[in-house]
Amino acid sequence: TRSISLAVIPGDGIGPEVVAQGLKVLTAVLPQDVKLETREYDLGAKRWHATGETLPDAELESLRAYDAILLGAIGDPSVPSGTLERGMLLKLRFAFDHFVNLRPSRRYPNTASPLAGDPAIDFVVVREGTEGPYAGNGGTVRGGTPHEIATEVSVNTAHGVERVVRDAYERARARPRKKLTLVHKTNVMAYAGHLWKSAFDRVGQEYPEVSTDYLHVDAATIFMVTDPARFDVIVTDNLFGDILTDLAAAVSGGIGLAASGNINPTRDFPSMFEPVHGSAPDIAGRGKADPTATVLSTALLLRHLGHENEAVRIEEAVSADLAERGETARTTDETGDALAARAAG
Amino acid sequence: TRSISLAVIPGDGIGPEVVAQGLKVLTAVLPQDVKLETREYDLGAKRWHATGETLPDAELESLRAYDAILLGAIGDPSVPSGTLERGMLLKLRFAFDHFVNLRPSRRYPNTASPLAGDPAIDFVVVREGTEGPYAGNGGTVRGGTPHEIATEVSVNTAHGVERVVRDAYERARARPRKKLTLVHKTNVMAYAGHLWKSAFDRVGQEYPEVSTDYLHVDAATIFMVTDPARFDVIVTDNLFGDILTDLAAAVSGGIGLAASGNINPTRDFPSMFEPVHGSAPDIAGRGKADPTATVLSTALLLRHLGHENEAVRIEEAVSADLAERGETARTTDETGDALAARAAG
Ligand SMILES: CC(C)[C@H](C(=O)O)[C@@H](O)C(=O)O
Ligand SMILES: CC(C)[C@H](C(=O)O)[C@@H](O)C(=O)O
Repeated sequence: TRSISLAVIPGDGIGPEVVAQGLKVLTAVLPQDVKLETREYDLGAKRWHATGETLPDAELESLRAYDAILLGAIGDPSVPSGTLERGMLLKLRFAFDHFVNLRPSRRYPNTASPLAGDPAIDFVVVREGTEGPYAGNGGTVRGGTPHEIATEVSVNTAHGVERVVRDAYERARARPRKKLTLVHKTNVMAYAGHLWKSAFDRVGQEYPEVSTDYLHVDAATIFMVTDPARFDVIVTDNLFGDILTDLAAAVSGGIGLAASGNINPTRDFPSMFEPVHGSAPDIAGRGKADPTATVLSTALLLRHLGHENEAVRIEEAVSADLAERGETARTTDETGDALAARAAG
Repeated sequence: TRSISLAVIPGDGIGPEVVAQGLKVLTAVLPQDVKLETREYDLGAKRWHATGETLPDAELESLRAYDAILLGAIGDPSVPSGTLERGMLLKLRFAFDHFVNLRPSRRYPNTASPLAGDPAIDFVVVREGTEGPYAGNGGTVRGGTPHEIATEVSVNTAHGVERVVRDAYERARARPRKKLTLVHKTNVMAYAGHLWKSAFDRVGQEYPEVSTDYLHVDAATIFMVTDPARFDVIVTDNLFGDILTDLAAAVSGGIGLAASGNINPTRDFPSMFEPVHGSAPDIAGRGKADPTATVLSTALLLRHLGHENEAVRIEEAVSADLAERGETARTTDETGDALAARAAG
């Protein structure tokens, strides 16, 4: 594309601050002849308080027209937990069929890992994004009584599992180590486990050059802290992926660096890019937020739209910047400026 | 009780080796006038290969009669994954209504933590043991076809949630810090989340001296590696508890030290005690397994049966032993001897 139309959802808390820096870097890195058109969407806590709306259908419809969406963060203690998450974030992931929730973990220089030693970390989690326990399938019987029963149904389909597993094999094959790990809990969740494991084995036959292994999710968390270097590409369901990627972010330098893409590889719908961190209302508006995760999310965005060189330039800018800045405290804006200057090259 | 009747299930792999040391320490620590009667149950991979049985009803029935069950480990690569887990381990937990799956994490001297610094760790996870996604409720439609749908249903009842939450408050109140953290994913799993959160808040009114907080499971894994000292008592569902306790074991000195109790506090059924680790077939039969987790599980067993002094003696023996043995390599048997000698006092 020689032009990018981008819907921007700054959201709540530190969302607007970090998104501003993401856009700054994006603008700096794009070649002159690529036009970036952006439109801001006012969604999140303020909007909900004012109108009761999380994501009206008309707005959802209008979002379809963009090449991509950049999201800051949503959520505020003043809004009942889950309202914005389900009414906006998950609604977008499901409506736009973002079945690949892509979350790379990489150990950048000068970042603090809680792990002793300095394990090399460079893996990517391909988290399924449209099924599993996130499907919102469940219910309550005899609610509010001593006989209440509440259920949550994890929904897994051959279609949904196979396509994300295939995507993960593709990504594994493109990497030097060519290794793919399936994470599930097949010994307990036998129905879903069987579906995942057979799709994993079946699709794997088309990728003989990719070496594979399987870990139960509990064991995977152990390796995440004792031997994260063993991982190359991980494919897993929506819930296990949620848990593993927060842990992965923590061990590889903190949630302030973790980028993510909610991707529909078919490009039938716009994909959405967002930092893994939340809206951090406690530090909002004070120029304290680290915009790096958002900046790295714009690299994923550019890669998805075919601007590989620019994506790499952003990632290298982050790496060089972290190597140099060391422990220096900087404002959100200063970090954005530094990254934009480097990425512009 | 001045006598203890104990069913012993050594199981597979290193199970028999570590159970032998557990029994050695148990025998050494009990006062002369407490009679320990044990009977061994031959369950696990070998039995399954020979007879196709995992846990016949008659044996399940006969197990009811004991004061407690000591389990080594089950599982072998030659048995289809899940067969023994669901056919034996989970069958026992469900049949004997082990709704409190108790898993303490404590940082012992001279143990290796993957975490930098040396965070003080002393918390206990109260994991629900009879509901959630472990209920085995689910199914497959159009299995083996491109249109397969597989579901797993997490079942949560007011009865089941309230009793485990209450147990956790009791345990929190009995500890110096009196702090209880609920871990769930209420923002996504709204039906179950609401049931858990309201039970947590409602029961909490009876425990004004206990301070409480709530964490989403993904955030909890971050704190587990960045600030494990913040935890005192955690209460959570069956699946989140499975994941969190493996991670907790890893950060607090390794899975070789993690003890657990599958407890029915009403004592209507025998409770079952087992190390958190698996059968480790790769090191089985070579005297290499660390029996400490099993020995610590016997301390939980004694505490459950009212032998608090003896439980403490075992825990202190483990602590003193670890402080002294340092990095010395010892056989399974030598560690058992050392712990038995110390605990006998
Ligand atoms: C906010 C929440 C719904 C979301 C999720 O669970 O997917 C977040 O934790 C994430 O990982 O993007
Ligand atoms: C073996 C498996 C079924 C079991 C579980 O998931 O509960 C184990 O991981 C545990 O934590 O005791």
